[in-house]
Amino acid sequence: MVDIATRVYNHKWKIDPIVRSLIDTDFYKLLMCQSVFRNRPDTNVTFSLINRSKNIRLADLIDEGELREQLDHVRGLSLTRGESTWLRGNTFYGKRQMFRPDFMEFLEGLRLPAYQLEKRDGQYELTFEGKWPEVMLWEIPALAILMELRSRAVLKDMGRFELQVLYARAMTRLWEKIEALRKLPDLLIADFGTRRRHSFLWQDWCVQAMMEGLGDRFTGTSNCLIAMRRDIEAIGTNAHELPMVYAALADSDQELRQAPYEVLADWHEEHDGNLRIILPDTYGTKGFLKHAPDWLAGWTGIRIDSGDPAEYAEIAIKWWQDRGEDPRQKLIIFSDGLDVENIVSLYNQFHGRVKVSFGWGTLLTNDFRDLVPDNGLAPFSLVCKAVAANGRPTVKLSDNPGKATGPADEVERYKHVFDIGQQIEREVIV
Amino acid sequence: MVDIATRVYNHKWKIDPIVRSLIDTDFYKLLMCQSVFRNRPDTNVTFSLINRSKNIRLADLIDEGELREQLDHVRGLSLTRGESTWLRGNTFYGKRQMFRPDFMEFLEGLRLPAYQLEKRDGQYELTFEGKWPEVMLWEIPALAILMELRSRAVLKDMGRFELQVLYARAMTRLWEKIEALRKLPDLLIADFGTRRRHSFLWQDWCVQAMMEGLGDRFTGTSNCLIAMRRDIEAIGTNAHELPMVYAALADSDQELRQAPYEVLADWHEEHDGNLRIILPDTYGTKGFLKHAPDWLAGWTGIRIDSGDPAEYAEIAIKWWQDRGEDPRQKLIIFSDGLDVENIVSLYNQFHGRVKVSFGWGTLLTNDFRDLVPDNGLAPFSLVCKAVAANGRPTVKLSDNPGKATGPADEVERYKHVFDIGQQIEREVIV
Repeated sequence: MVDIATRVYNHKWKIDPIVRSLIDTDFYKLLMCQSVFRNRPDTNVTFSLINRSKNIRLADLIDEGELREQLDHVRGLSLTRGESTWLRGNTFYGKRQMFRPDFMEFLEGLRLPAYQLEKRDGQYELTFEGKWPEVMLWEIPALAILMELRSRAVLKDMGRFELQVLYARAMTRLWEKIEALRKLPDLLIADFGTRRRHSFLWQDWCVQAMMEGLGDRFTGTSNCLIAMRRDIEAIGTNAHELPMVYAALADSDQELRQAPYEVLADWHEEHDGNLRIILPDTYGTKGFLKHAPDWLAGWTGIRIDSGDPAEYAEIAIKWWQDRGEDPRQKLIIFSDGLDVENIVSLYNQFHGRVKVSFGWGTLLTNDFRDLVPDNGLAPFSLVCKAVAANGRPTVKLSDNPGKATGPADEVERYKHVFDIGQQIEREVIV
Repeated sequence: MVDIATRVYNHKWKIDPIVRSLIDTDFYKLLMCQSVFRNRPDTNVTFSLINRSKNIRLADLIDEGELREQLDHVRGLSLTRGESTWLRGNTFYGKRQMFRPDFMEFLEGLRLPAYQLEKRDGQYELTFEGKWPEVMLWEIPALAILMELRSRAVLKDMGRFELQVLYARAMTRLWEKIEALRKLPDLLIADFGTRRRHSFLWQDWCVQAMMEGLGDRFTGTSNCLIAMRRDIEAIGTNAHELPMVYAALADSDQELRQAPYEVLADWHEEHDGNLRIILPDTYGTKGFLKHAPDWLAGWTGIRIDSGDPAEYAEIAIKWWQDRGEDPRQKLIIFSDGLDVENIVSLYNQFHGRVKVSFGWGTLLTNDFRDLVPDNGLAPFSLVCKAVAANGRPTVKLSDNPGKATGPADEVERYKHVFDIGQQIEREVIV
């Protein structure tokens, strides 16, 4: 029977919104937002969209009007009562009231600030300026909107059954990955694929497939909305934007050198247990670990997000050993460019030597490679980063020179301050 | 929004019926039924289910209670007003009022007769006895019910996403077949897969995929219900049951020898054009053609349903040439054990020399080979045949001794009467 009311209601949509909730975002954005709200609320930041894959000419593919409609729709969103209740009442990482009342009040009153959009050389220049705790929440919806509008643009002329077969192929592909992962008895893996997902519905499907296919070995999703709806764990800790902005705000090379540790000192006050995860690569992992204060060796784990993951995991293990820690009690989270092949090989290399966990991103939620002509749905490398803080440019180096961002002179200064030696360039997959 | 009424209505179903309409059957059954209703209405026949694949122990797989519920449900069906209107008003093979008023009245009043069901050696013995025009309409629903109950039995313990991926794989497989067939510019192909379909919904999906993927090259479906709902052509002419029953009723070897021609003489009175298709293999194609009256050479085409299809197509072409007919004006319909590989090769061999058409059956609507453990969904060779007429056993020989049915002594008598020489055994695929 046709539900007439639903059909009529659907007709009323001017658009089919891609992001329909403020918590359709990564859990770590909310954790970091709370930390920023507490420690650096008045910082002015600029976030900017950067398409590292220049061959994907987004401004040619995606209609500007449609993009504006989607972004405007997000500006109209506010936290719903149920979302607020969930954030206030749910247990995250075993902890009740993860989000403090003053932060929840801020979040309940939040509307995302204005955006600036221009076209240049076949790309969109999309920037967000304002208070850090507000602007930072644009990152994930902006990326998800661009990614999904690109999917829609590529799919718009396909027939109904052609589409169904396309998704059938993508489903089969993911299921085969899950079947391969199922062979790893102590696997721990989470969905980190919100930002570069094919679409919201597809990410939601992927998460459910992981739940059924991997059971307890699937530890949760970074996406708060999906975590809430599917009643699973929301996963994530912190990201590069914290040290990048703290570093930009430093007034001297000496302060700059300390900035990454200051971030984690603030974090240390707020969080314990599995939330104490070091992300050491912002300005080079080797230097970071070498100069790290001893209390950091007591943290639970390290997330490896650039460079050769096996090499850096060995470096982390050695560092713990040098600091008198037992690596078998420590957690390494791999989260860079993962797919089944490297997950299996990293699992085999490190399982038993440390606790191992995987944050599987784009090739979980957006592997449509070779499924349409000209590989038109292949994932690509789109990021949305803090590019300036209080008028100063930010810099990221990472363990892969291909991922470095920032003005060339500042990159050189940071390399000098952080004593970066020779780095090996690695292909940025996604 | 949940449609509460629909949910409640669905709860009321004691069963999920497999066959929900009397016209969820092959079009040629209705054509033949009209012919029988006119020419041999009082013949008593017995139809019997025969599972040629003894290794598939249907009585172990399928619950007897469920089977009875499904069969009982079919006995409760009658022609709906819309179905009757469609049969009376639609154009079939370019002809209006294909079904005569007296036959439509019979069909409108019809309820399918009782069935006899027993278990023996892991198989069901399912038989139907009564007036030929009534009993014959059990064939397709009985087969479809057994096939789908077997699918349900194999699928019942699978998870939701496992199921979705199973169908994703089957969809992908069919679409790849369609993509291969799309390369044949003058292809004509129809769905003949009702009787051994995986399920009704799956057949309906396959038909729609063929419509989108092949456009005009997809000529229609043998399934009347799907033809009506999808607004496409209903396809089919006649089958072995006509010569088999006519032959069983013959009182002498001389009458027996004439029986297959008598069937077509009755058909000749009723039908013309593309409905004049010879099915020559019931008692051996070679003998049939050799002794055929000249008026049969004027018919539109020949359907090849057993033996080596290329060999018998060459025999048909030679026969037309010998009778002074132009094969390029004639139609050959291939309908035995088809899949993409032999469709492509038969198309390439005969396209341009004759008109070629394909009736694609089981490997269109039930190709789940190797998609579940132990190949539990592989199609198998289930038939439901007229085994007796007015107390006399029926016999079928065909061009493949592996497909012969009937008591051994009668098979021998028929082989002698029809002068069957050496036959080559071919594997019965489906």
